[in-house]
Amino acid sequence: MTEELIEERPFEENLESLEQAINGQSIDRIMQLLGEADLEDAAKLVDRLDAEDRKSLFALLTAEQAAEVLENMYYFQGADIVEDLPPKAAASIIARLDSDDRADLLNELDEEDSAAILEELDREIADETRRFMAYPDGTAGAVMYSEYLAFDAGLTVEEILSDIRSQREQYAEFGVQYAYVLDDRHRLLGVLPIRNLLFARHSEKAREVMIRNPITVDVETSIHELNNLFEQHHFLGLPVVDPDGTLLGIVDREAASEAMQEAATEDLLKFQGLMGREELRSMPLATRSKRRLSWLSINIVLNLISASIIALHQDTLQAVIALAVFLPIISDMSGCSGNQAVAVSMRELSLELVSPREFLRVFFKESSVGLTNGIVLGLLVGVLAWIWKGNPALGAVVGSALALNTVIAVCVGGLVPLLLKAFRQDPALASGPILTTVTDMCGFLLILGIASLCLPLLV
Amino acid sequence: MTEELIEERPFEENLESLEQAINGQSIDRIMQLLGEADLEDAAKLVDRLDAEDRKSLFALLTAEQAAEVLENMYYFQGADIVEDLPPKAAASIIARLDSDDRADLLNELDEEDSAAILEELDREIADETRRFMAYPDGTAGAVMYSEYLAFDAGLTVEEILSDIRSQREQYAEFGVQYAYVLDDRHRLLGVLPIRNLLFARHSEKAREVMIRNPITVDVETSIHELNNLFEQHHFLGLPVVDPDGTLLGIVDREAASEAMQEAATEDLLKFQGLMGREELRSMPLATRSKRRLSWLSINIVLNLISASIIALHQDTLQAVIALAVFLPIISDMSGCSGNQAVAVSMRELSLELVSPREFLRVFFKESSVGLTNGIVLGLLVGVLAWIWKGNPALGAVVGSALALNTVIAVCVGGLVPLLLKAFRQDPALASGPILTTVTDMCGFLLILGIASLCLPLLV
Repeated sequence: MTEELIEERPFEENLESLEQAINGQSIDRIMQLLGEADLEDAAKLVDRLDAEDRKSLFALLTAEQAAEVLENMYYFQGADIVEDLPPKAAASIIARLDSDDRADLLNELDEEDSAAILEELDREIADETRRFMAYPDGTAGAVMYSEYLAFDAGLTVEEILSDIRSQREQYAEFGVQYAYVLDDRHRLLGVLPIRNLLFARHSEKAREVMIRNPITVDVETSIHELNNLFEQHHFLGLPVVDPDGTLLGIVDREAASEAMQEAATEDLLKFQGLMGREELRSMPLATRSKRRLSWLSINIVLNLISASIIALHQDTLQAVIALAVFLPIISDMSGCSGNQAVAVSMRELSLELVSPREFLRVFFKESSVGLTNGIVLGLLVGVLAWIWKGNPALGAVVGSALALNTVIAVCVGGLVPLLLKAFRQDPALASGPILTTVTDMCGFLLILGIASLCLPLLV
Repeated sequence: MTEELIEERPFEENLESLEQAINGQSIDRIMQLLGEADLEDAAKLVDRLDAEDRKSLFALLTAEQAAEVLENMYYFQGADIVEDLPPKAAASIIARLDSDDRADLLNELDEEDSAAILEELDREIADETRRFMAYPDGTAGAVMYSEYLAFDAGLTVEEILSDIRSQREQYAEFGVQYAYVLDDRHRLLGVLPIRNLLFARHSEKAREVMIRNPITVDVETSIHELNNLFEQHHFLGLPVVDPDGTLLGIVDREAASEAMQEAATEDLLKFQGLMGREELRSMPLATRSKRRLSWLSINIVLNLISASIIALHQDTLQAVIALAVFLPIISDMSGCSGNQAVAVSMRELSLELVSPREFLRVFFKESSVGLTNGIVLGLLVGVLAWIWKGNPALGAVVGSALALNTVIAVCVGGLVPLLLKAFRQDPALASGPILTTVTDMCGFLLILGIASLCLPLLV
């Protein structure tokens, strides 16, 4: 009954209730609002609290309760909250999260903050967390978790079943589907789908009923490979082992798929000039402004470089002022054409349909599209320029500059992501600015250069 | 042994072997290359076949074999292949896919092609597929599948177990974790986790051991809500029911998470000017060129509109030619600032941290960032302009225009996605061009307008 009530009340009322509960220090009511009901809105509720209330909220809750609240929020929201807590308090909350969430959250913090929190964690947990944090994004290491069910190979089905029954609740919460069978040195011998215990005699040993030589991955296996494996096989989880066969952790289907989603989201943020970092409007103005400026300031330097080409051709421009109208058109259209090629390359790279070494293939494929589209766009704009000023030479200059620059933009756009990938740089972050700078410079150079060559025809 | 051999051979050799096998009509060898080995490369192999070979390949395979190959590829690759087959042949392949894959693939085709194939399918499958195809992207209906395990409430645990045992292989392939308990009118009564059968007495009836009143969703439940549900609960699947409680299909964790990933990927493609459609470089030049041009031609019209502002101010530009250098800078920098705000709005919308109606909140949050960053950028560029030409008035004009236009761009960028969403348009597709056109027009108007007002100080 209560649950339904909370769900149906509009968001603003819930927010008000939460603020009242915080001011009234009514922990039960807080946990009811944030923890019990359908939690669609929990993340949004905490997001909309003002900074003061949010601080009071986490000062009121026990570490256990705070961890429960964090589990219902996005990890970057969690990072934002934990950042403001004393390291000791933060550590005792973070210790209660799952191993993979813990690493994600700490990786979102500044190095200084995360180091301070790691200091406060239990040695064993801290060591594991440091290891987990070090695995690069996009690998099995970065998404695996260390909460799994493992049994010694010598145990019987009976013994395993009784252990599972006795800890049923905890296992149910893990969503465990497999048990892992290990030798005495923690090396993986086999996998035991819990379901198979349905069909096994109770006296058999784990080593007799397990699946031998299971498919394993290593910490460096790419997210893309993981997703392929999960698509080919109907596994729910895959064990991650080191070269000796020691079990390091488990990756499940969902984590692998989520990691692909996150990578796509981050690429989107990077392309749009947010450096791949999440920004929420509830963050302080200074943070938001600073983060955005860090990108804009790089961009302004690149812009000044390409604009310097115009500065060098002021005389030509002065003589044929109509050209000024076409400078932003050339810049924008070439940018668009190039970005399409960037998107295709990024997509083929992420699907592993192209390898970073296949420059020639991409070059030929893109130059043909570039030439076709360049001719179409060049003709279109050229004819418009001709009609506008009644001067065919102006049309020819503008049209040919746009056509040529489209070819350049499309080829550069197709190749830059491959080049960056080959040099182990992030294509999503750098492709856009490199593309824009190159195509702007070439575009301005082409239109103003060609114009100055045939200046007598234009004036 | 063979598997390892195939895996370790470089891609080019496998491609050659496949081409040879196709020319030699050696179906066994084809299926071995495409079907047996570690299939990381299967999608890439088919991608790289030339059009002729690809046609021969699918002419050789039985429908069963072709479906197996398609299952190892991306659905948009599958669509590309099926498109070229006669509808009858295509239908018999498609009939063998899972219900959700079938709908995805057909939705990727032109309406004419998919209608022709639907005609050839069994009436029952065709009807279901049409229903599945109609659910809009981003809803539970679009990702659910109809392959599930259902039992009558009156069966005993014994009877259910024996049914599962007798069809063990088929169920294992489904990756089934739950059985659904239905009444005689196909209405959902409860869920039976297969694991729970471990703990049940064999004589009990399904209705006694099932979980009553399970959480269900309807076909319109958003992907985002589904992911939230899966995050809060450790379910592996959720039943989708109609208002009467009739079971329509199942959504699993992975499908929900994959759908989020696909949405993010599509947004990325749209932002980069590909209309959200996948383009592979193996597609014919005409297709690729035409798709890209459809976007570029809209863009060129928008560009001409904003450039017309410059055309109207040619006299001012003629008088102060230095302004021409700053036109592309204003256009590009405002575009960047605006895009950052677009990205934040898109992200908050997809996380449901902002509702499309919260214009005022977004406006205040963005205008403060816009003002801060506008002042910083305006000062920077203004001072540079002053130094370059030794004219403080030029610096003031350029700087104030950039500052003001940054505020406009950031506010427009933040609000446009909300507006589009409120009018049920796609923010990813239209935000970019709307933003660019508005900010370019305002930017050119500001710098040239202010300049013409204080022309005496500039010349």
